[in-house]
Order: sequence, then structure tokens, then C-alpha cells
Amino acid sequence: MITVLSGGTGTPKLLQGIKEIVNQDELNIIVNTLENDYFSGVYISADIDTVLYTMSDMINDELWYGVKGDTFVTNEKLAELGTPELLRIGDIDRATKIQKTLLLQNNTLAESVKIQAEHMGIHANILPMSNEDSEITIVTDKGKLEFHDFLIKYQCRPEVTDIITSKVNPAPGVVEAIENSSMVIIGPSNPITSILPIISLNGVIDALKETYVVAVSPIIGNDSVSGPASKFMKALNIPVSSVGVASLYKDFLDNLVIDNKDENLKEEIENIIENVTVTNTIMKTLDDKKNLSELIINII
Amino acid sequence: MITVLSGGTGTPKLLQGIKEIVNQDELNIIVNTLENDYFSGVYISADIDTVLYTMSDMINDELWYGVKGDTFVTNEKLAELGTPELLRIGDIDRATKIQKTLLLQNNTLAESVKIQAEHMGIHANILPMSNEDSEITIVTDKGKLEFHDFLIKYQCRPEVTDIITSKVNPAPGVVEAIENSSMVIIGPSNPITSILPIISLNGVIDALKETYVVAVSPIIGNDSVSGPASKFMKALNIPVSSVGVASLYKDFLDNLVIDNKDENLKEEIENIIENVTVTNTIMKTLDDKKNLSELIINII
Repeated sequence: MITVLSGGTGTPKLLQGIKEIVNQDELNIIVNTLENDYFSGVYISADIDTVLYTMSDMINDELWYGVKGDTFVTNEKLAELGTPELLRIGDIDRATKIQKTLLLQNNTLAESVKIQAEHMGIHANILPMSNEDSEITIVTDKGKLEFHDFLIKYQCRPEVTDIITSKVNPAPGVVEAIENSSMVIIGPSNPITSILPIISLNGVIDALKETYVVAVSPIIGNDSVSGPASKFMKALNIPVSSVGVASLYKDFLDNLVIDNKDENLKEEIENIIENVTVTNTIMKTLDDKKNLSELIINII
Repeated sequence: MITVLSGGTGTPKLLQGIKEIVNQDELNIIVNTLENDYFSGVYISADIDTVLYTMSDMINDELWYGVKGDTFVTNEKLAELGTPELLRIGDIDRATKIQKTLLLQNNTLAESVKIQAEHMGIHANILPMSNEDSEITIVTDKGKLEFHDFLIKYQCRPEVTDIITSKVNPAPGVVEAIENSSMVIIGPSNPITSILPIISLNGVIDALKETYVVAVSPIIGNDSVSGPASKFMKALNIPVSSVGVASLYKDFLDNLVIDNKDENLKEEIENIIENVTVTNTIMKTLDDKKNLSELIINII
């Protein structure tokens, strides 16, 4: 078994490669749930839905959010009626979200996602990191902001001084998935708001220490490949570089994959963790994704 | 002021005529809410939405449900995902329902409908009969059924033996709307499940007794023009005819409008109520609707 820890953009890109070369029955994907919340009357688990759509080939992989070719009839009508949605929910995407909301009336989040994955023909085991409600608050120079407000309404512009997250328990099977894997891949997702929430779950660090863990750095040079990772790392006084990523994961990381452009950091990182792999980590084409996946899988 | 009591199909047809000849600022429409409930995670007030769509010229007036020209992307995807909806909700229609559901978090139903009517450019005063949750159970030879299950899942087929409805209080302004009107029009809606719920509200019968009340019979011959009215009347041992309608409304009705085809019933009905008007009550064209509306308005 292989287990991937995933957020919402960088790791799904990698998953498009992994799913081409790994049998999905041999794959667990543990997904961040920290930002999940109700919007427009439906439960939104953005990272989980991105993973569901990625694994079922439905993903809008320009936005890494929603379904490719989706329409926005309801969303546009809501704006016209004077109730604009914070999140731009497409009509097909809304069906997924309505179904999950209805399933949650009688099931845990993990059970609901399992049912949805089956309906979508997905064989990989997609595991929400937790079944519990959680909160994440971004402390900024514009005040304390909800995560999605910071991301969308404020376009990640305010200066970030701290990030406050609630502590939740892992969903059943999360720790066991890691324990039963020959390799854990930490995808190039935001280390602070996507990966650390998974790692901080009770029992996860201990399980990671017993497993071979490879991470792909989401930072090239001094900036994140996508999203506000660099802003969040700076706020927590972590160097915004692959060196910072290595220091964050050092307690359990066996191999950090960094981009060719950061080859000069290899030695410095080898002082922090045992192995560093230098390759192309920018995933534009499916070949980029498959090549990176193959290299990772072949590390052990 | 004129006040119309409305259900979901027959009366909206008449409203299409009334709105052409009455200033909307002079018009109250009190709408049945008995069957309102949550479906697919949204609050569904079918009769209210039909009246909103009718007054804003959005109504699908073939089905008398939903928005004309609507698409069904979310509805069809939900079925594909294994969660078919009991009610076929269109994408534009869903926006209305989502907005109402969100408004209900901080407003009464009457306040929410008022906000929606304003956004839709409607000047008539659309009043839900009650702000309270209610239930309606159809007792049949197939057991006790929820109203929408009877209507849609069972296609009105089972034999009806009784109808059980919950008692609710009128929304603020309902009794006053009737008291302040020179005429109340009871539209040709189902007398049992659409009109009686309004009439049974505390204070409504007394207010109707003090006002000139005209009703349009929803029965021609021995059957309802549309919907299961005749089945419900039979279950309550009310003659399925305009005579039965007259007897139901006799305590407060001043004039019953019956169809030309029932001219032979005129004398019998005149033994029950004071005035009977015979005319064409089948509303196919806009002219039919305008002619009938004009005749009613000119009664006083």
C-alpha cells in the first residue's frame, strides 16, 4: 500500500500522475478537512472534492476547483437574486455537495466520502483526515479572517501574523492506513494549512516515523508554486524555501524531492534530513506528473 | 385592496389574468404553506414559489411548477450519483430555494418571501399563510403518506380515506389583509389541501364574513380541473361538484363562479349561497384568464 497526504492543488496534480502508474486498490489518500464548512446551505469540503474529481477524471484542472465543463446557472441566479455565493459552485459540483450534505445527516464524513467515491467509480481509498468539525482562522493586519474569506474575498493579500487551527481527532483508519503502507508520499500541498493539520493528528507522527516518507517540496526558490504557502510559512517564522520544508518535516521525513532550480540547497538540506532527490517538480503536462510519480515510487 | 387566496395551480392561472387588470400595489396574495418542507437540503414552499414565478413572469406554465426554460444539471447529476430528488428542481429554481433557505436562518418565512419578491420586482404583497412549520398526511389504502409522496411517488393513485393536517397560526398581516380588502377572491385551487388550510387559520373566517368573497369553483361536472381535489373531497364525504364547493364555503361566500357546463347546478347552489355566476372558467389562453378576472373584479 501507498498512502498520499493531500491538500487541494499541488497534491492532486501529482495524483494525476500516481493514478496512472499505481493500482488504485493499493492507494490511500488522506485529505485535509480543516477548512470544511457550510456555505450556501451545503457542506463544502473543497480538498476532498478536488481529490474525488481528480481521481474520477472530472476535475477542472485549470482552477483545481470544481468540475471541468461545469455550468453555473444556480450560482449566477443567486447573485442576480442578491445572494451571491462566496464560493463559485457549479451545477454539477453542487450535486456532489448536496449529496454529501444529505449523506452527512446519517453518516460520518468518512462514510459519506466512501459512498460518493464508489458512485464515482473510484477505487482508491479516499480518507478525510477527520470526521470532526474544525476551524481555521488567519490572523492578519486586517483582523482575524475565516480561511475562505482570506483566500477569496481578500485574495490572500493581507499580511499574515498567525494561523489558529482547532485540534481534531483522526478519522478511523487514518493512522492504520499509514501504518500499513510501505511508503507515505506527502504531496506538494501547503505545508501549513494542508499537511500540518494531517500530521498533527494524534498518532500520525508516530506512524510516519515507522514508515518510509517522501515529500515533494511545494516551494521553489523562495516562493510557493501555487497558493499562499509562502505567506503562511513566513508568518510562522519558517524559512520560505525547501530548507524550511525540510525543517518542518524533519522528525519523520526520509526523502525530500526538490526542484532542479534548488539544486544549490541540496547540501544544506542533507544536514537536516537523510536523502534529497533533485528533479523537475513543476507539473505542467501529464508526462511531468507521471515522471515525478515514477521517480517517487521507485525511491524504495 | 383585493386579496386572493391561493394554492399552487388553478389560482396562479387566474393570477396571470388578475395581474393584467389590477394594480399590483392593490393586491394581496395569501398562499398556502401546509405542504412546505425540506427536500434535498433546501426549504421547498411549492405554492409560494409558483406564485412568485407567476407574478414575475418566470413560471413554467405548462407544469405550473418551476421556472420556464430552466435546466436540470444538478438534479440529473444527483440522480446519476445515486441520490435522486423526489422533486425535480431546476437550476434557476434551486437558486430561489437556496436563497429562501439561507434567508430563513435569520428571517421568518413571510419576511424571506417579501425579500425574494422585492428582488424579483414583484409589487403585489405575497403573504405566506403562516410562518410556522406544518404537516399534512394523506391517509390512504396504502397507508399514511406524506403529501409529496402521495402526489409524486404514488401519482395520487391510492384511495384516500382521510387527510390529517396540523393546526398553525396565521402569519402577521394575513387577517388584516382580508379585513382591509373590499373583495376576497378564492381562486380555483384545491379546496381541501390549499384553501381550507388558509380558511381554518384563527380569525380568517370572521374576517371573510365581513368582506365580499367570490370563489371560482375548481370543479367542473364531477371532477377537478387539475390535481387531486376530487379525490380529497370524496374522502371527506363532500359532494364532488360545485355544489360541494358551495357547501364548503357557505359560511362566508357571497358569490360562486361556476363553469358554463354546470349551469344546471345554478339553482341548487343558489339554495346554499346568495349569488352564482356562470361563465367560462377554463383558462387556456391569456384572454380566458383576463376575461374571468375582469368578470370577478366587476362583480362588486
